[in-house]
Amino acid sequence: MNVTIIGAGNMGRGIGHRIVAGGHDVTVVDREPEEAQQLAEELRSAAQDGATVEASGPSTELRGEVVILAVYYPGNLELARDLGDRLAGKVVVDISNPLNQTFDALATAPGTSAAEEVATTTTGARVVKAFNTTFAPTLVEGQVAGQPLDVLIAGDDEEAKETVAQLARDGGLRAIDVGPLERARQLEGLGFLGITLQQPLGLNFQSAWKLIS
Amino acid sequence: MNVTIIGAGNMGRGIGHRIVAGGHDVTVVDREPEEAQQLAEELRSAAQDGATVEASGPSTELRGEVVILAVYYPGNLELARDLGDRLAGKVVVDISNPLNQTFDALATAPGTSAAEEVATTTTGARVVKAFNTTFAPTLVEGQVAGQPLDVLIAGDDEEAKETVAQLARDGGLRAIDVGPLERARQLEGLGFLGITLQQPLGLNFQSAWKLIS
Repeated sequence: MNVTIIGAGNMGRGIGHRIVAGGHDVTVVDREPEEAQQLAEELRSAAQDGATVEASGPSTELRGEVVILAVYYPGNLELARDLGDRLAGKVVVDISNPLNQTFDALATAPGTSAAEEVATTTTGARVVKAFNTTFAPTLVEGQVAGQPLDVLIAGDDEEAKETVAQLARDGGLRAIDVGPLERARQLEGLGFLGITLQQPLGLNFQSAWKLIS
Repeated sequence: MNVTIIGAGNMGRGIGHRIVAGGHDVTVVDREPEEAQQLAEELRSAAQDGATVEASGPSTELRGEVVILAVYYPGNLELARDLGDRLAGKVVVDISNPLNQTFDALATAPGTSAAEEVATTTTGARVVKAFNTTFAPTLVEGQVAGQPLDVLIAGDDEEAKETVAQLARDGGLRAIDVGPLERARQLEGLGFLGITLQQPLGLNFQSAWKLIS
């Protein structure tokens, strides 16, 4: 697959590592060309099975069928709005955790989610929520304490969800379909909960939520 | 400690097993005296370190400092209302997952939680949310796949939370303080998510959410 990652920050880096580990091609897009170049270089040296990695500025055409919005909330909403028609038909992955400025509450209105806001912001995009409960450092490794990360995936487009699940599995992760896009409300609640526990438990973003059985 | 468990159903049974395993005394209360007797007998034979177990009807005085409302939502609200002043000063544990009739959404209004509703229903009760993300069969064992269950605990009364954490730890579980009572919104979201995944993943309520690190 061809995957465009918009945002060359920590999460773009973490997810990028999993995608190239699975042998998929990546285009890294960032407003700062140097950041995009730097991450592309890192991912290129980690790539498996002939996966290619390119860097690109924000004004180019979006390559591939999957676009990952690897930016913070509410930047992801602005980004989705700015991209407009260029997202039509694409699998658009929202990874955001919509925290308020003091990181002690969700910034979204009760009864909705950032992923649903992305969906209403775009037209024709096949929005999927994923990777918001997996921290960047753990994505680089793909595991915590020897156990593969669980990637919890919500969306209304079954095929789009399966595409994201395939990317996760190919990168050595466990994909769990949690249902329709409105389940993003619970996923964002879980992401928020995980973030609030990092400091008190001294976890340093090296933790992961797992559904064990 | 003395712990009163109201509700001799599956969750009362699961939590009861952990509490007597930790050597704490339990009173089982149920509207059906036979149910209470039967569970008391089972717990008595599982009790450790001289823990005593009694059965009681609903009209008796509540024994001990901890009262666990082991009933379904919205029955827990009715129960809290009915108990009224008898809960004053007690550590009151709400374990509910407030699902709607079709089990595909939360029945609580957005921006609140069943635990917060219990708190507003009572006067002087020290309400703690706990045990809503741990399924009954896993509580009987205390573990899943060899890993101790995580008990996620929310509340505004630090001492009350520590009391519940102590009970969990004494029963061989891992207690995690997730913050103020309003975090019950996220815990109930997580409980809901876990319930919805049982059938599609074929888990049969033998799964558990863990924060691994």
